[in-house]
Amino acid sequence: MKRIIRKEVLDTEKYVAGKPISEVKRELGLKEVIKLASNENPLGCSPDVKKVLYNLINNTALYPDSGNFQLKQALANHYNVNVSQVFCGGGSDSLIKVLCTTFLNPGDESIIAQVTFPRYESNIKLMGGICVKIPMKNNGLDVDAMVNAITDKTKMIWMCNPNNPTGSIFTKEDLQKVLDRIPKNVIIVMDEAYIEYVEDKNFPDSIEILNQYPNMITLRTFSKAYGLAGLRCGYGIANEELVGYINRVINPFDVNLFAQVAAVSALEDQDFLKEVVDENRKEREYLSKYFEEKKLEYVNSNTNFIMVNINRDDKPVYEAMLKKGVIIRPGFLLGMPQWLRISIGTKEQNRKLVQVLNDVL
Amino acid sequence: MKRIIRKEVLDTEKYVAGKPISEVKRELGLKEVIKLASNENPLGCSPDVKKVLYNLINNTALYPDSGNFQLKQALANHYNVNVSQVFCGGGSDSLIKVLCTTFLNPGDESIIAQVTFPRYESNIKLMGGICVKIPMKNNGLDVDAMVNAITDKTKMIWMCNPNNPTGSIFTKEDLQKVLDRIPKNVIIVMDEAYIEYVEDKNFPDSIEILNQYPNMITLRTFSKAYGLAGLRCGYGIANEELVGYINRVINPFDVNLFAQVAAVSALEDQDFLKEVVDENRKEREYLSKYFEEKKLEYVNSNTNFIMVNINRDDKPVYEAMLKKGVIIRPGFLLGMPQWLRISIGTKEQNRKLVQVLNDVL
Repeated sequence: MKRIIRKEVLDTEKYVAGKPISEVKRELGLKEVIKLASNENPLGCSPDVKKVLYNLINNTALYPDSGNFQLKQALANHYNVNVSQVFCGGGSDSLIKVLCTTFLNPGDESIIAQVTFPRYESNIKLMGGICVKIPMKNNGLDVDAMVNAITDKTKMIWMCNPNNPTGSIFTKEDLQKVLDRIPKNVIIVMDEAYIEYVEDKNFPDSIEILNQYPNMITLRTFSKAYGLAGLRCGYGIANEELVGYINRVINPFDVNLFAQVAAVSALEDQDFLKEVVDENRKEREYLSKYFEEKKLEYVNSNTNFIMVNINRDDKPVYEAMLKKGVIIRPGFLLGMPQWLRISIGTKEQNRKLVQVLNDVL
Repeated sequence: MKRIIRKEVLDTEKYVAGKPISEVKRELGLKEVIKLASNENPLGCSPDVKKVLYNLINNTALYPDSGNFQLKQALANHYNVNVSQVFCGGGSDSLIKVLCTTFLNPGDESIIAQVTFPRYESNIKLMGGICVKIPMKNNGLDVDAMVNAITDKTKMIWMCNPNNPTGSIFTKEDLQKVLDRIPKNVIIVMDEAYIEYVEDKNFPDSIEILNQYPNMITLRTFSKAYGLAGLRCGYGIANEELVGYINRVINPFDVNLFAQVAAVSALEDQDFLKEVVDENRKEREYLSKYFEEKKLEYVNSNTNFIMVNINRDDKPVYEAMLKKGVIIRPGFLLGMPQWLRISIGTKEQNRKLVQVLNDVL
């Protein structure tokens, strides 16, 4: 059987996602479980989105618009770009595979950070690409070293900013110093899934500079601050010609009907987004303060999660927390053993987390 | 720019889906438009599905279960197969790409019918595969000729039964005659997206014979008779070892949360499915009778659509019908010029269609 499978598939591991609450309840026989493992928005989505979803329930049988007309239009208006510069997919995750399928031939090199979103590597390898991993600098991307690693074989360079799972950012200045050293035939992917949470004034918004870099692609999502992870909707913005090719690869119905309509509505409610960001900042400060008190090293975060160094084997800590009904993301799955990645929950959830972490450590 | 795009992408055309109602209204300034172009279920989905969707609206922020645990369990029970034999994706469309990504290396041959679901060809080519097209026999699949076309380079053979867009079937006997001539290292994909509508006693249900053919993969969907096209959920059943490899390729969140929950509920309401099939049969008979009266050749259909020969250029007919607010699928887009593919709508929609077709022809 193995002989008929592509060798790239044989070399691929199945992605291990954060355990869903239902699974933990089932496996451990628990009644109360909180999940702070997948960077989900504890405030959910805008009430306006819920209204449009109610109105859609009689339309399940209709195919989504394969052109994503209204969603692209809304995004183009929001960012003041041309509609033909926008592409949409079933989450950033789907679009990462689409980008690899658009650009990577077997043997092409792709540069990523040592500790970053694991789906870059799996999708690069699935297309036969070679993943070149660059060590971290102060738990963040070393963009200078990443650009230095470019060779004649490099096809893509992936910059996750803020970076998942560290939560760190690199600045405008960091980026400006390296951008002009990236050849025009190397695609720069700026994955900004968490940008809505960023408040650092030195953060580079890549959409503002896209017009200067026709080889740059920005990826963003409705899964995080907009609270639509369950529906699956991500998008990208780039040079029109590139987008034309990328659109050939995206499955025509990759963004389902509910996601398309919800995303348009979510984008319109910027007040809700502000509440989400405000609440997240407050709770992030609460957790940061707790880590400081406990003298636990943590990465300064611009996102809705926080990476903390527990100075001991993280797997048993993760398992002990699971048994007490708190799911977090253990560092050993992320390339940072001895660390935990904790999503910022509601006030109540974060207090429960602190209590359980106190008990376990 | 072109030089950095994979040559397979340069050779791919963007899929042209049926125009959504909103687009036709917008472009032609029409108020009333009916769409009988995408084989959507005019009865929608089960009322039970609507109930579970209402209850989900507060959970948009939660990631779907990447293991599709409950859905796979429900499908395994429904078909009396092992859970490890089931895989799920965002519609059959997504799974077609997944299968090509799992099996096809550049230069591998894939055998399809001349007139069949166009997404096989585009996904085969996207992986660098070579598409071998076999002419139709009486507007149906010539399975004998398809199997005769197998060479040392053949990796996959795609049998759409009932076939989209013709609506034709091949029988148990047709299949039995050729199956044992297909080498074990050639994957047989049985795409049975429309099987719920089939009433012909000689139709081969591939799931019943899967255990004898470890190289056979059955694809089915919730998009048609179950009325969930908008949510995107398809599935496959095959040999456990194959499924293990296929699951490595499927994006972890390919089936969104709403689709997973809706599909489980849809599967439970088999009474609704029976209503859908009964109503569809009645209306298919109404349209068939009309074509007979008009002496228009049509393909005997086992699906929720019908292919009719209008003996003249189909494009202007399609356009004239559009202007009168009826969207159908013109044959020129399907490799059958001079034909129209008409989805079976509600009683009211079908009468409107007959009226407009009468006017236009």
